[in-house]
Amino acid sequence: MWQPANPLYLHPNPLFSFTALYLSHTMSTETPTRNRVNFATPRSFGATMKSHLKETFFPDDPFRQFRNEKSGLKKPLQYFIPIFEWLPNYSLRLFKFDLLSGITIASLAIPQGISYAKLANLPPIIGLYSSFVPPLIYAVFGNSKHLAVGTVAACSLLIANTIGEEVSHKDDPTLYLHLVFTATFFTGIFQTLLGLLRLGILVDFLSHPTITGFMGGTATLICLQQLKGIFGLKHFTTKTDVVSVLHAVFQNRDERKKRPNLFWVSAIAPMVVVIVGCLFAYFAHADKHGIQIVGHLSRGLNPLSIKHLNFDSQYIPVTLKAGLITGLIALAEGVAIGRSFAIMKNEQVDGNKEMIAFGLMNIVGSFTSCYLTTGPFSKTAVNFNAGCRTAMSNVVMAICMMLTLLLLAPLFSYTPLVALSAIIMSAMLGLIDYQEIYHLFKVDKFDFLICMAGFLGVAFISMDHGLMMSIGLALVRTLLYAARPATCKLGKVQDSCVYRDTEQYPGSTSVNGVLALQLGSPVYFANSNYIRERILRWIQEEEDISNAKESVVEHVLLDLSGVTSTDTTGIETLIEISKMLQAKSIKLSIVNPRLCVMEKMIRSHFVDKIGKESIFLCIEDAIEASLFSEKRQV
Amino acid sequence: MWQPANPLYLHPNPLFSFTALYLSHTMSTETPTRNRVNFATPRSFGATMKSHLKETFFPDDPFRQFRNEKSGLKKPLQYFIPIFEWLPNYSLRLFKFDLLSGITIASLAIPQGISYAKLANLPPIIGLYSSFVPPLIYAVFGNSKHLAVGTVAACSLLIANTIGEEVSHKDDPTLYLHLVFTATFFTGIFQTLLGLLRLGILVDFLSHPTITGFMGGTATLICLQQLKGIFGLKHFTTKTDVVSVLHAVFQNRDERKKRPNLFWVSAIAPMVVVIVGCLFAYFAHADKHGIQIVGHLSRGLNPLSIKHLNFDSQYIPVTLKAGLITGLIALAEGVAIGRSFAIMKNEQVDGNKEMIAFGLMNIVGSFTSCYLTTGPFSKTAVNFNAGCRTAMSNVVMAICMMLTLLLLAPLFSYTPLVALSAIIMSAMLGLIDYQEIYHLFKVDKFDFLICMAGFLGVAFISMDHGLMMSIGLALVRTLLYAARPATCKLGKVQDSCVYRDTEQYPGSTSVNGVLALQLGSPVYFANSNYIRERILRWIQEEEDISNAKESVVEHVLLDLSGVTSTDTTGIETLIEISKMLQAKSIKLSIVNPRLCVMEKMIRSHFVDKIGKESIFLCIEDAIEASLFSEKRQV
Repeated sequence: MWQPANPLYLHPNPLFSFTALYLSHTMSTETPTRNRVNFATPRSFGATMKSHLKETFFPDDPFRQFRNEKSGLKKPLQYFIPIFEWLPNYSLRLFKFDLLSGITIASLAIPQGISYAKLANLPPIIGLYSSFVPPLIYAVFGNSKHLAVGTVAACSLLIANTIGEEVSHKDDPTLYLHLVFTATFFTGIFQTLLGLLRLGILVDFLSHPTITGFMGGTATLICLQQLKGIFGLKHFTTKTDVVSVLHAVFQNRDERKKRPNLFWVSAIAPMVVVIVGCLFAYFAHADKHGIQIVGHLSRGLNPLSIKHLNFDSQYIPVTLKAGLITGLIALAEGVAIGRSFAIMKNEQVDGNKEMIAFGLMNIVGSFTSCYLTTGPFSKTAVNFNAGCRTAMSNVVMAICMMLTLLLLAPLFSYTPLVALSAIIMSAMLGLIDYQEIYHLFKVDKFDFLICMAGFLGVAFISMDHGLMMSIGLALVRTLLYAARPATCKLGKVQDSCVYRDTEQYPGSTSVNGVLALQLGSPVYFANSNYIRERILRWIQEEEDISNAKESVVEHVLLDLSGVTSTDTTGIETLIEISKMLQAKSIKLSIVNPRLCVMEKMIRSHFVDKIGKESIFLCIEDAIEASLFSEKRQV
Repeated sequence: MWQPANPLYLHPNPLFSFTALYLSHTMSTETPTRNRVNFATPRSFGATMKSHLKETFFPDDPFRQFRNEKSGLKKPLQYFIPIFEWLPNYSLRLFKFDLLSGITIASLAIPQGISYAKLANLPPIIGLYSSFVPPLIYAVFGNSKHLAVGTVAACSLLIANTIGEEVSHKDDPTLYLHLVFTATFFTGIFQTLLGLLRLGILVDFLSHPTITGFMGGTATLICLQQLKGIFGLKHFTTKTDVVSVLHAVFQNRDERKKRPNLFWVSAIAPMVVVIVGCLFAYFAHADKHGIQIVGHLSRGLNPLSIKHLNFDSQYIPVTLKAGLITGLIALAEGVAIGRSFAIMKNEQVDGNKEMIAFGLMNIVGSFTSCYLTTGPFSKTAVNFNAGCRTAMSNVVMAICMMLTLLLLAPLFSYTPLVALSAIIMSAMLGLIDYQEIYHLFKVDKFDFLICMAGFLGVAFISMDHGLMMSIGLALVRTLLYAARPATCKLGKVQDSCVYRDTEQYPGSTSVNGVLALQLGSPVYFANSNYIRERILRWIQEEEDISNAKESVVEHVLLDLSGVTSTDTTGIETLIEISKMLQAKSIKLSIVNPRLCVMEKMIRSHFVDKIGKESIFLCIEDAIEASLFSEKRQV
């Protein structure tokens, strides 16, 4: 019984042997057997590098699925061009949803396109062109099911400001227009490159709290803007009209929640509102009574603009600058939005593929009289609420836009702007996620702060500033984590043999003279000062607790199990700590350094300096050895 | 023997019971006893917050030393005003070194002060004033033993550019001068505030590789500048002079290394060179032969300038801007330099106290006709090489400057600039640390990259850009670490009972159907996508290895021992992972969540969702429970 035949029992279980040693206090001078640490040669630079690059840029191992297939082009094609994946399984049932949402966003695309084009100091028709070609490209290459392609307010303004510095749109509207196309071309190239270089890692830094705050703030902002527009009209029209439109919209929203079968009613409502508004405006000559309408629109599809791209060295700096800045903001907005709606549906968006889709859509757009497009918040929200299922809704929108451009443009001229305001507002109000914000407040105060920075920043400063503030705070949090990794003192948990945080497991006991500390991760330049000072403080605190001479620290064990990475400053800090402890006659032992850390310890000769006998595989071995050496001194 | 009376033996050792269960394959249906996880109520928000704030801003627990003392003002005084700490123990032996280095840096301060004042478009005498008052203030409050106070080239240029935008130094030199004083005042206020707010954490982000690169690059830059000056003179003076000066200097350097007793020779050499240069220039009328000299200097100490501070609202924006930007750069340079020399001597610099010292020195400086001062690289290097021991060398320099201003100023007018170039170069050449750079290359390639970015950036772009590039790369590294934490598969190490990384310990074996993964730290928004995808890949890889039905993964154990922190996105990711695994009929267990993680798991109801029975204290318990549930299914 005591020593069964099984070989596993023959091995000296460290827990057992430690306990035996500790309790019996035998004065044996034999070194206890212990688990062997692997001091094998470090991996080659090439191997480490390859592993790091793979984890950084290809963590999803996207090409695994092609590896086993012989000469099959279907899978890679599906991977790179998502339309081949979803189109074969596309059904009439799905199309019903996409048709509805496509028509809905098309009805939004007209007034949005016109007003944003005006913000960018471009002819209104350019805004309509921009909702025809880019959505078709996105439908082929895009990754998100809910994203609706269109122009955005922030970038439109930014383009006007940047290009306007060099060329006035009033003095030379043709040159100005061509420079905008050129900037859009640069945006496309830049976005495609980011995607090809697998810099989708950038998207990982858009956290859920950031997106919640950004969405809530943008919804608030747009609602306030629309309200301003609506109240601006109260002198021209009867108040009842506004209220009735709002009331109708809200009633539809409620109905949708209560009776899902009546979804058609609420989804078609915006279009109905637009048509009713048009008819009303047309027959009542509303424009003559002060009600603002969209205004004259001429017929015809996008003319080619590839020959108008202007690469004159005089204008390259300004077009390049406009292209890069708006490209980045558009990407941040578009990817954040695509991602946020994907999260709602528990789906995933591949940031890299999304960047390539945006890039291609802007390159082709710049060839066909379009300016910068991305996934605007309002349009995507309407698309999502209208029940879109795939990128087909973008195709429907594009076809609607084509028909509008060819035939109906003059009819839509009569749409009253107030009707559009009501539609947008009804979409926005559902997107302020109070519950999520409360959840953040309850679980993690810093996340709440990140969220509110985005919310208030977007609502009261600007969309891009709000987004940047929120991302900035999230990065500060990441850096703070790196600068102040948690350390804890380990003790043996009551009625157990495992060593855990004494704060988390009160009642856990430590061994006299041995201070076991678990370091957080990583040990880096950003926290090396902190870790050194913190370890000194642990020793100091230990000595403060008891004045009895026997409890003074004789051994410090640093458990590096949780330290997955280090750098030269980190290793130097360990060397410094070992020197400092030596000066206090305290022996330092290292427990369970992981692969990356061990490699650097060997390369920097730390292992030689501290001695292989001071590095242990587990905390129990280290404590056993400490006690053993204490006894030898007695 | 088998069951001794000691209570520790009575407890079911998890290793033992697991092994017994695993090997005997008994069909018992009793739940195995296991170590209890602590699910106690999370700490209050106040307690968590207090702990976080303390670790972030007061990791060194600076006030501990005062807590036990009753009404003793000595220790706090020593803490806040470092001169009270070192002055009582100051000895004549130390003064010998400080006198030497003080005189040496004073001889540098004159030409540097004049040339940098010219860069800032200020009267030359302002440069001399700036080396009199600020060093005295620094000697009282400063933290570094090696730092020599003075003006710096980069900030001087920056002040000229910023203030020059608003007021021309040619049209209104008095107003220009007063605005520079005001900017210096704002710098001082800003730096003091940063220090009082304990933002010395910023200094932690200046890593050793950054400092090595920054030092090497600056040394190269200054050498190239000096060489340019020297070769610019070859048409005016004989080549032999230059060579002999350089030769003399280099010989001194070599001697110093070989015979430490001859240190006096090398330390006094610069001063000798200056005096010999002055005598030569005076008697040979060198200035009339085209050799550049320092030029006319008038007598008199700093006049008060506090009444000249200009808070006119018209100029506030420009002085505030100049003050903040130069203040930050000066701080980065000064603290980096103080820190880098402290590292050489294995000492520590408290960033917060250093910021306050810089701030006070600039506030007082702005009252006494000085402009922005910090710890310039060249002067500090000379101070260090000349063997300074304490901040007393700054006092010596200040006294020298006072004497110079009162009496000797006209005599120093004759110093040939070429002599100063030689002195500076000899100090610089020793500061390019080839060995350290090679060490970085060998141990950590990314650190080498950070170092070279600083080196080449400083040498070929500018000091501040080089520093920023290097810090930027270091931050990218930190963020990359956060975005891609190492995960590994755990297996039982051969001839042992502990579970470790199977890559690090080849031959370690895993249990059929159980995949034990150790997560890196932290599980955060920045890596939640990565972790989810990586876990799916681990499962995929596991299933790829063997096609046999029995080895398909049935249990996934996530060891969170190394995860010291998480956020709401991290917790949501865990929930998503649990759902995804459920869809694949895989059971998820969590092993050893630490205090912070457990708190958030409880608050977000993750513990309720996954069930308390799926959370284990150690990996052995979790594996035992997995095997137990597998057997029950059989």
